Amino acid sequence: MIEQLLKGDRKSVARAISQVENDTPLSRGLLKELYGRTGRAYRVGITGPPGAGKSTLTNKLARYYRLQHLKVGIIAVDPTSPFTGGALLGDRVRMSEVELDEGVFIRSMASRGSLGGLSKKAKEAADVLDASGYEVVMMETVGVGQSELDVASAADTTVVVLVPESGDGIQAMKAGLMEIADLFVLNKADRPGADQAVMSLKMILGFRSHTEQSWMPDVLKTQANEGRGIEETANLIQRHRTFLEGSGELERKRKSRLEQRIREIIENQLHIDFWNSQRSRELHQKLDLLLQRQSNPYDVAADLLEDFRAGGEQ
Amino acid sequence: MIEQLLKGDRKSVARAISQVENDTPLSRGLLKELYGRTGRAYRVGITGPPGAGKSTLTNKLARYYRLQHLKVGIIAVDPTSPFTGGALLGDRVRMSEVELDEGVFIRSMASRGSLGGLSKKAKEAADVLDASGYEVVMMETVGVGQSELDVASAADTTVVVLVPESGDGIQAMKAGLMEIADLFVLNKADRPGADQAVMSLKMILGFRSHTEQSWMPDVLKTQANEGRGIEETANLIQRHRTFLEGSGELERKRKSRLEQRIREIIENQLHIDFWNSQRSRELHQKLDLLLQRQSNPYDVAADLLEDFRAGGEQ
Repeated sequence: MIEQLLKGDRKSVARAISQVENDTPLSRGLLKELYGRTGRAYRVGITGPPGAGKSTLTNKLARYYRLQHLKVGIIAVDPTSPFTGGALLGDRVRMSEVELDEGVFIRSMASRGSLGGLSKKAKEAADVLDASGYEVVMMETVGVGQSELDVASAADTTVVVLVPESGDGIQAMKAGLMEIADLFVLNKADRPGADQAVMSLKMILGFRSHTEQSWMPDVLKTQANEGRGIEETANLIQRHRTFLEGSGELERKRKSRLEQRIREIIENQLHIDFWNSQRSRELHQKLDLLLQRQSNPYDVAADLLEDFRAGGEQ
Repeated sequence: MIEQLLKGDRKSVARAISQVENDTPLSRGLLKELYGRTGRAYRVGITGPPGAGKSTLTNKLARYYRLQHLKVGIIAVDPTSPFTGGALLGDRVRMSEVELDEGVFIRSMASRGSLGGLSKKAKEAADVLDASGYEVVMMETVGVGQSELDVASAADTTVVVLVPESGDGIQAMKAGLMEIADLFVLNKADRPGADQAVMSLKMILGFRSHTEQSWMPDVLKTQANEGRGIEETANLIQRHRTFLEGSGELERKRKSRLEQRIREIIENQLHIDFWNSQRSRELHQKLDLLLQRQSNPYDVAADLLEDFRAGGEQ
């Protein structure tokens, strides 16, 4: 499978990502193997509030890259995205324009109910695409909530998509989007308030501390639906890439991402090690005492931790 | 301090929550002491998309409870809430109508940059309020992202606030709000589309599997700004409470919440135990090898885990 995958075989890629998604024993070995072949894809994070048009932008950017004969992988982690949506109660998935293109691989991952492991899995899926020769990997997530932001910011270039209704940028600032944005796209720019929104975003960006050497995020207007502003967006992503590569910032960025990845792998494993059947059972047995206020959550936690440290039945 | 706190002294409450927020050594002992005195407050979670009017609703409900002479605590974990907002670049905090009322305690907690511990801290802050005699504790969070939903659903009754623009409920469904809602409030119900929104929410609710014994969430229309629908909302919360108490569901709910709490305490502590200075240093040293693809994240993680299991310098 690995051999096929490295050659870019779509079925092997799909199977590998499924392994990753289900966190199978096989996936660990697979990712180890593949790691040495990663680092060639350029990763672009696309994030923003629900309804900003992230999927449409992702779609159009993918098409643009295809015209340059680049292979494009898309990981969509967004409960409001048509890529992830599924056909739910008549809410039809918009057929993506790139869905049938052999040079595009789209994978959606559900964001609910995955107990926090999703951010790790999404990045691992991006590794699979990277190793199998996709030259641009786009990760689309809804930009509210820590784990969604984690995914988007695990990219080389992070694009934050807003709409005029997103207000004057203050909301974006509060939601933590200002810190992770390498560039802003103001989508649906034909709507009223677009110019004011751009102006106030730029004003806020002006307050960010930066030196002459540092990257200054810019704001672009798009109408992704109509294909307007797509080329400009791709060009600005390219300019950011050139900046990162030239300044050594790309290496620093990837290094800190790597650190984050190792931390996630460890937290994940600790969780599995800790909650063996014996300790899970013990926790359940103590809950009644707790409800009667005959113990407290902190002492129960301390007892379980004590047992774990003593190496109890790992 | 504990004595003063149990008497409801505001300064002690504020100080205790600060200890909890900063996760000080003192806070652990404090929470242990207080735990035996919790369980009397009724906890209401208020969640929904940004801009739905959660804070206004919270504010008006608090005022309503005050008219019934109930003491009200509010924990706001919402980057878009005026309670948490702070005076940011001219975005003035709306003065809450209840802010100066001695029977209301408002505490806002920042949702960014707290490394995942926020959900734990918000619930602990609710415990402090509970133990110090606040009879209703409301927890307001923006309803996108797992950790925010965790906070809102750590309540006895969870209210999901939507607006007509939220669409036909499909978005709410995808964002996981349908599963946690005990009741829906369609706020800003004077706007176009309100009746259709209510109808389609009810239709979707009809699909939820439920028996005659189970609670059936209802949808209320409000205009929180004008105070309309507030009494109806409070009444429905009360009806849900009566249902929970009568069916034994309240105990089951609190039991599973308790389990979640213990899990959080443990994950938190494992993280602290694991990342001692020696292992943090080792991680940093290995990053360069990794960048050169001479190792892989999984082997590095495995080595660190091995060291931890062997009890290396804990």
